[in-house]
Amino acid sequence: MTQQPTSHAPGSRRPGGRTARTRTAVLEATLAELVENGYADTRVDRIATRANIAATTIYRRWGSLENIVVDLADELAVTIGLGESASLEDDLRTVARAVVTLNEDPAHRAWLQAMVSAATRSPSARTALSSVLAHRRDICSVAVRDAIARGEVPAGTDPHEVIRATVAPLYLRMYINGEPVGPADADRAATAATLAARAGLYVLPPGSATGPATPEAPTPEA
Amino acid sequence: MTQQPTSHAPGSRRPGGRTARTRTAVLEATLAELVENGYADTRVDRIATRANIAATTIYRRWGSLENIVVDLADELAVTIGLGESASLEDDLRTVARAVVTLNEDPAHRAWLQAMVSAATRSPSARTALSSVLAHRRDICSVAVRDAIARGEVPAGTDPHEVIRATVAPLYLRMYINGEPVGPADADRAATAATLAARAGLYVLPPGSATGPATPEAPTPEA
Repeated sequence: MTQQPTSHAPGSRRPGGRTARTRTAVLEATLAELVENGYADTRVDRIATRANIAATTIYRRWGSLENIVVDLADELAVTIGLGESASLEDDLRTVARAVVTLNEDPAHRAWLQAMVSAATRSPSARTALSSVLAHRRDICSVAVRDAIARGEVPAGTDPHEVIRATVAPLYLRMYINGEPVGPADADRAATAATLAARAGLYVLPPGSATGPATPEAPTPEA
Repeated sequence: MTQQPTSHAPGSRRPGGRTARTRTAVLEATLAELVENGYADTRVDRIATRANIAATTIYRRWGSLENIVVDLADELAVTIGLGESASLEDDLRTVARAVVTLNEDPAHRAWLQAMVSAATRSPSARTALSSVLAHRRDICSVAVRDAIARGEVPAGTDPHEVIRATVAPLYLRMYINGEPVGPADADRAATAATLAARAGLYVLPPGSATGPATPEAPTPEA
């Protein structure tokens, strides 16, 4: 099964149409504002000016800056093929390598750096970033559900916790320690998460479910 | 073996003496400036004013804001007793729980949030934060060296990589996903890192040593 989100660059997703052009212009302007000014100083009215679109149009369509940022995250993501292998380790390598690949995309890196920076200070940025990352864990959870179905990991294994374990060493290097990441780091993280999942470490006690608080992350532009 | 850095609150470390009072005043002023303004807007001259100490005195003693921040990190750290157990898992639990404990200290959390935020934008903040964290991994490495000596993990296991694996899920929750952490998260991370280390996963290929680039992190005030 091939997973969304999209692999298309902004603008190529819904070819043609005024609505598609509006969306592309707003997302590109938002990314540019985030890179230039950071989340704290990004304003919808400046996005409107840069995109040459009325601010009221933007508010009507997205409702808030947070929702634009969530939509942008979807646009900056990559397609990852999960559930096609017969091994949790292979699927988790795919997840971990996607994190490394995204980090090599200057636009995605700029977006995520702005969000990580802002989230330490802004509750709305925190909400937007948490939603995006929970949504990505949801998408990747199929790898864990398939592994449970195959009997490779115990029933009750928490998919979000397995994905967290897979990506954590990569985010630590990229955004906390400031160290390079490469495919070898991705593969090592995937193998470690697989070992722990097989050992039953991510079967969490009842009541400590660690998925998103809401069943669906906000997707203002489905 | 009981490890430094200190467990004392700022001001209690070197009782008495003008030098000790100067250091305490500067570190307290720096923390207050970081919390109020973030790293990017923290200036040595404002620290000097707040601490009622001449800026020239501060420059003579520390040399730069980065060095004050590194010194502050040491002051905000906690003593952790490592190498007293006979089990890598126990020692890594101690390390992981220290991360959780530090996160519960409002001063330490404010300092680290300011640094994580700044490090995405400022190379000097990145250098200061990387130095502090590499220094902490150095201190914790005794747990891995002891485990190698006992034959619990393979010779050649990279101590820094084991410590990264231990703390990564906690930092991911705290600073990337914006999720709570508790002792159960700490213990799970420690067990996962132990499993992977015992399996030989952190014996890295020659030439990929992952310790600090310099043998010693800067310690302007040893």
